[in-house]
Amino acid sequence: MSRIKVAVLGATGMIGQRFIQLLEGHPFFEIEGLYASERSDGKKVSEVLKVKDHRFDQETLSSEIRQVDTEKISDSCRVAFSGLPAGIAMGIEQSLADRGVAVFSNASSHRMRDDVPLLIPEVNPDHLEVIRSQPTYERGGYIVTNANCSTTGIAPPLKALDDAFGLEMVCVSTYQAVSGAGYPGVPSLDILGNILPHIKGEEEKMEKEIQKMLGNLDGDRVRYADFDMLANCARVPVVDGHLESMTMTFRESPEIEEVSSALSEFRSEPQHLELPSAPFQPIIVREEADRPQPLLDAYAGEPERARGMAVTVGRLRKKDRYYKVFALSHNTLRGGAGGSVLNAELAVEKGHLR
Amino acid sequence: MSRIKVAVLGATGMIGQRFIQLLEGHPFFEIEGLYASERSDGKKVSEVLKVKDHRFDQETLSSEIRQVDTEKISDSCRVAFSGLPAGIAMGIEQSLADRGVAVFSNASSHRMRDDVPLLIPEVNPDHLEVIRSQPTYERGGYIVTNANCSTTGIAPPLKALDDAFGLEMVCVSTYQAVSGAGYPGVPSLDILGNILPHIKGEEEKMEKEIQKMLGNLDGDRVRYADFDMLANCARVPVVDGHLESMTMTFRESPEIEEVSSALSEFRSEPQHLELPSAPFQPIIVREEADRPQPLLDAYAGEPERARGMAVTVGRLRKKDRYYKVFALSHNTLRGGAGGSVLNAELAVEKGHLR
Amino acid sequence: MSRIKVAVLGATGMIGQRFIQLLEGHPFFEIEGLYASERSDGKKVSEVLKVKDHRFDQETLSSEIRQVDTEKISDSCRVAFSGLPAGIAMGIEQSLADRGVAVFSNASSHRMRDDVPLLIPEVNPDHLEVIRSQPTYERGGYIVTNANCSTTGIAPPLKALDDAFGLEMVCVSTYQAVSGAGYPGVPSLDILGNILPHIKGEEEKMEKEIQKMLGNLDGDRVRYADFDMLANCARVPVVDGHLESMTMTFRESPEIEEVSSALSEFRSEPQHLELPSAPFQPIIVREEADRPQPLLDAYAGEPERARGMAVTVGRLRKKDRYYKVFALSHNTLRGGAGGSVLNAELAVEKGHLR
Amino acid sequence: MSRIKVAVLGATGMIGQRFIQLLEGHPFFEIEGLYASERSDGKKVSEVLKVKDHRFDQETLSSEIRQVDTEKISDSCRVAFSGLPAGIAMGIEQSLADRGVAVFSNASSHRMRDDVPLLIPEVNPDHLEVIRSQPTYERGGYIVTNANCSTTGIAPPLKALDDAFGLEMVCVSTYQAVSGAGYPGVPSLDILGNILPHIKGEEEKMEKEIQKMLGNLDGDRVRYADFDMLANCARVPVVDGHLESMTMTFRESPEIEEVSSALSEFRSEPQHLELPSAPFQPIIVREEADRPQPLLDAYAGEPERARGMAVTVGRLRKKDRYYKVFALSHNTLRGGAGGSVLNAELAVEKGHLR
Repeated sequence: MSRIKVAVLGATGMIGQRFIQLLEGHPFFEIEGLYASERSDGKKVSEVLKVKDHRFDQETLSSEIRQVDTEKISDSCRVAFSGLPAGIAMGIEQSLADRGVAVFSNASSHRMRDDVPLLIPEVNPDHLEVIRSQPTYERGGYIVTNANCSTTGIAPPLKALDDAFGLEMVCVSTYQAVSGAGYPGVPSLDILGNILPHIKGEEEKMEKEIQKMLGNLDGDRVRYADFDMLANCARVPVVDGHLESMTMTFRESPEIEEVSSALSEFRSEPQHLELPSAPFQPIIVREEADRPQPLLDAYAGEPERARGMAVTVGRLRKKDRYYKVFALSHNTLRGGAGGSVLNAELAVEKGHLR
Repeated sequence: MSRIKVAVLGATGMIGQRFIQLLEGHPFFEIEGLYASERSDGKKVSEVLKVKDHRFDQETLSSEIRQVDTEKISDSCRVAFSGLPAGIAMGIEQSLADRGVAVFSNASSHRMRDDVPLLIPEVNPDHLEVIRSQPTYERGGYIVTNANCSTTGIAPPLKALDDAFGLEMVCVSTYQAVSGAGYPGVPSLDILGNILPHIKGEEEKMEKEIQKMLGNLDGDRVRYADFDMLANCARVPVVDGHLESMTMTFRESPEIEEVSSALSEFRSEPQHLELPSAPFQPIIVREEADRPQPLLDAYAGEPERARGMAVTVGRLRKKDRYYKVFALSHNTLRGGAGGSVLNAELAVEKGHLR
Repeated sequence: MSRIKVAVLGATGMIGQRFIQLLEGHPFFEIEGLYASERSDGKKVSEVLKVKDHRFDQETLSSEIRQVDTEKISDSCRVAFSGLPAGIAMGIEQSLADRGVAVFSNASSHRMRDDVPLLIPEVNPDHLEVIRSQPTYERGGYIVTNANCSTTGIAPPLKALDDAFGLEMVCVSTYQAVSGAGYPGVPSLDILGNILPHIKGEEEKMEKEIQKMLGNLDGDRVRYADFDMLANCARVPVVDGHLESMTMTFRESPEIEEVSSALSEFRSEPQHLELPSAPFQPIIVREEADRPQPLLDAYAGEPERARGMAVTVGRLRKKDRYYKVFALSHNTLRGGAGGSVLNAELAVEKGHLR
Repeated sequence: MSRIKVAVLGATGMIGQRFIQLLEGHPFFEIEGLYASERSDGKKVSEVLKVKDHRFDQETLSSEIRQVDTEKISDSCRVAFSGLPAGIAMGIEQSLADRGVAVFSNASSHRMRDDVPLLIPEVNPDHLEVIRSQPTYERGGYIVTNANCSTTGIAPPLKALDDAFGLEMVCVSTYQAVSGAGYPGVPSLDILGNILPHIKGEEEKMEKEIQKMLGNLDGDRVRYADFDMLANCARVPVVDGHLESMTMTFRESPEIEEVSSALSEFRSEPQHLELPSAPFQPIIVREEADRPQPLLDAYAGEPERARGMAVTVGRLRKKDRYYKVFALSHNTLRGGAGGSVLNAELAVEKGHLR
């Protein structure tokens, strides 16, 4: 099978650089071009390197970045992975869809549109089908989005628990890594030895997005879930990996062992389809007293291509009718570029990318 | 008025060193001796300095530390401030009470005893009276404890809100500073660029202690409060200042402005009595989008002697029937040594230290 | 004596905000206006607060910032303190001098001019006199600069040692705090758990500036010092306080005790004149094995107005003919705004501000 | 070829755990047993995990740790890798050598003995031969040590430069990671947002060890090198990777390009012998303005088994007759366990482990 040529948009950002890493040697996709703003035109990846990860491939680092030109992209690529900032994503992504390009986007611009799936293949693979409502679908153009990084990290465990016990209330507090704010992002003066108890728009996104993703498909629209969802978001001095505490009530009253099993035994479409970036076990339950931790668990996930794609949960506790748990995921892999790549893999398997 | 001679127990620890700072020039108390384990006998404060605070008085730093000897202490002091580790606090503190010494303790050993007040003067000043049940009270010996540092930081706002609107449920997640673990405490390898989602015994303490402090005095015993209290505790790479997110429901449905007023206008016994270490305003409400922050708000509180004794809250939000807020307090001042000193000041004013 | 009205330029930056703090209640100076770029026009200090220091005066925080207008400033002020970025400082500062304003600048633009003193009152107070060569001097307008923050921190100890033993070679490596890069400055992704072994232009500045400051006044020009000066500069994850290691050779061969005395007994013009911001002891020598440390020593200096104005040195060692020492100073106080204020105080005492 | 059975001593420490990682699937060696103090007897590796590296093999984590018993070890193993603390290493290591075990040690205890090589295979492979002077050699028992982590990181570049241009003076300042202090090691309260300008005994070790390693073998003894070596050591808030600034003078006056070539083209015995843990290129020269950085370069080195074994240098500068450079190496891989493993590989190839 010849690989599908893809464009990476916003290639100089934190998400864009992760796209480059993840697409290296991908069985389905092949990078045709790296695109960013005029400012980076002609630069090499090595010159704009922001992701502090020594595993960057030396050859990739010499790849050149070009200025985004939607016309040229649509001639050479059927797929675009977008790590564009929300401000400019709206127009460029739609313009590409109009020209018949399938856009897998990490930007928030189109997430809440009825005809755009907010997709996590482990959580709501059937939602992918709403792309058929997009007017450009017949030409092969459409937009698929992945959720906010902090929402993504808790969506798989919440899906597993909702299926098993019925969610009533979820109260989340986040401990979010600085890479989630992009580059230059958070000034060091604000975060060294400090916590910032505010991330603009983040709580609202978490509260809405989770309801859309855990909603049911009703015809060609998603009927939102309606449990109580409360979020408190804070930035912490950690480079990669969002930790989140969750306190929940369920319609049922499971024992804590049942909660543990519901999480660790959860498998979904990406596992059944054996998608290349799907972790064998999407939710890893740790028994140790002090896990998950960003430094130890951010890169959880097997096989190698699924590094950073598993969500790690730990500290399962029950108090009266409340259940408590900590969850951790890699915000620019599972919660960013990796999520979009997995979405595109699902689209391939579901026949939306011929 | 001649000042009351006091002993500082556990003078080499993080709390002990804060006692030394706070008692410098105190209008009611005068340090008679600094006591710690055999290991520190004969050392100077400057040799065991662990608190990274350049405001330490140069003269104090030359004070000598002696080995704890309960017999000698009771001869020279009527009061002991204890920053002893829980393990040894139990015996030494009781032995001092037996000998007629009033012990103001930061240790957890005696906190849940029915005849020992778990005291925050702004929250439950009337609970102080249970010391009369202690068999040693008539001799002038008794134990008064302050709460866990993470409980203390949220107790004043919860008291203000319970009085005003009736608490139903409180869901707390903590972002706790490393000074709360004492010295050497948290190894740097565990916390640099990392979060530890577990602090041994902390959640249980928070859930129980708040119920005792917000309970009502019924005769000579405290009847515990019974709202739902859920805690998730985590350690963050911050030196001083515990940040905590709180999501709450109330029996009433106030507007967010009413919540704000209930907090900022809260005053209590220490303010009425003008205790030396009482902050003029015990709860400071910040309107900025990104406050409270440890680096900016840990030392909140006026007058000078009340630095670090105010609790700062911010980000007041309402979603449906839920109310959300972030709170911050200095864990070794308000939540440690400062709390004990304020307790002792109340005891003086209430005639328990003649 | 009525206080001299002063303008603060670049009032929203890290240095500008320190100027505001330091001029609060100053015996010689009174802030007439805070000035910054158009962007900040009409904002309050509290809205642009970047310095993470809770000691900011509440009243000051409500002061308003105006757009820089050199014409209006020269009508109302005889003095301007400049924390402007180098790019725009050149023109604005000169324009103010042309209009008869005495400018005390933290910017690098004019530092190497022959008729502009690069002044540290403890090091080269006589160099102040070169302002007489400035064509605008007769009108009361002139420019006085202070040195780079990393140069300033080692200048007083190097002066003391050069006077006593004759410097031959100085090899410095710096551990520089992020506040030195201004705000937003260093992105957190670059410095959390990391060291950046490069600060643009810093080594060149250190190597040149120290030669100018330790040079001798020859008529109305400075003859540069000529010992070997080698600098390696790195940024570390510390908020305030530049630490620097120095390895030196001298023309003489003092005992280490003589080196210690030469440093701790060093006093200069600001101490003799009892300038308000001058530390009683400009160089504090610590005997402990592990000092100076940023967290403990950045704010060294007495009296209160000289907090952060003393340089702390420690770990004095001798190996063969080499001498080794660590030095620490507060980069935005001693090495920034505090330095300029002290320069202005010297100018007052020397009759250059009538 | 059947693999040589080896014991890991001090398996619960930072170095011990790195030994376990590196010996996983090693072509020459096979772990027979993991040994530590009585305290860890019967524990699993997963229970004592301190190295914050998610690449730990899951199977290894279930390996059991036993109490050190020199008698039993010598029955089953011909080789021991020692990560023991200096205090107890002395006796245990010698006792094993007495029983015919070849000990490759990371401890400082035996480093300065005339009959013990202080070995870095790239630097002084011929020094290995001094083991023949050890009285236990004929029985197959001997001790080989590797140098201090901060010395190791600069030894290869200094060797390359000494060979090419003749070292006269080396002035080093270190920025050392906390993993170098072991676990629990540096308390977080001491290092968060701070620098510690002192590491006990480190400067003395650096100054002596480098002279031994760069010395020449004269018969069966090493004649120490005699250039001037000056070290200033500091601990920084970084997890892994020692950065070091070096200012040097040479007997010759090379152009900076010649310095660069001498470093990047340096190859030595491990490369010629293609030892499994030898990096293809032992010294990597980076051209970027801001490299090397711990977060980006600590794990430099290819092939996979040599990750963290290359030294990265950058910022080559010349000023007058001085040369300046920054160097970085992984302190517990190249500077710890990896160094010992490479030493053992050399011993195999040189016929000292039949």
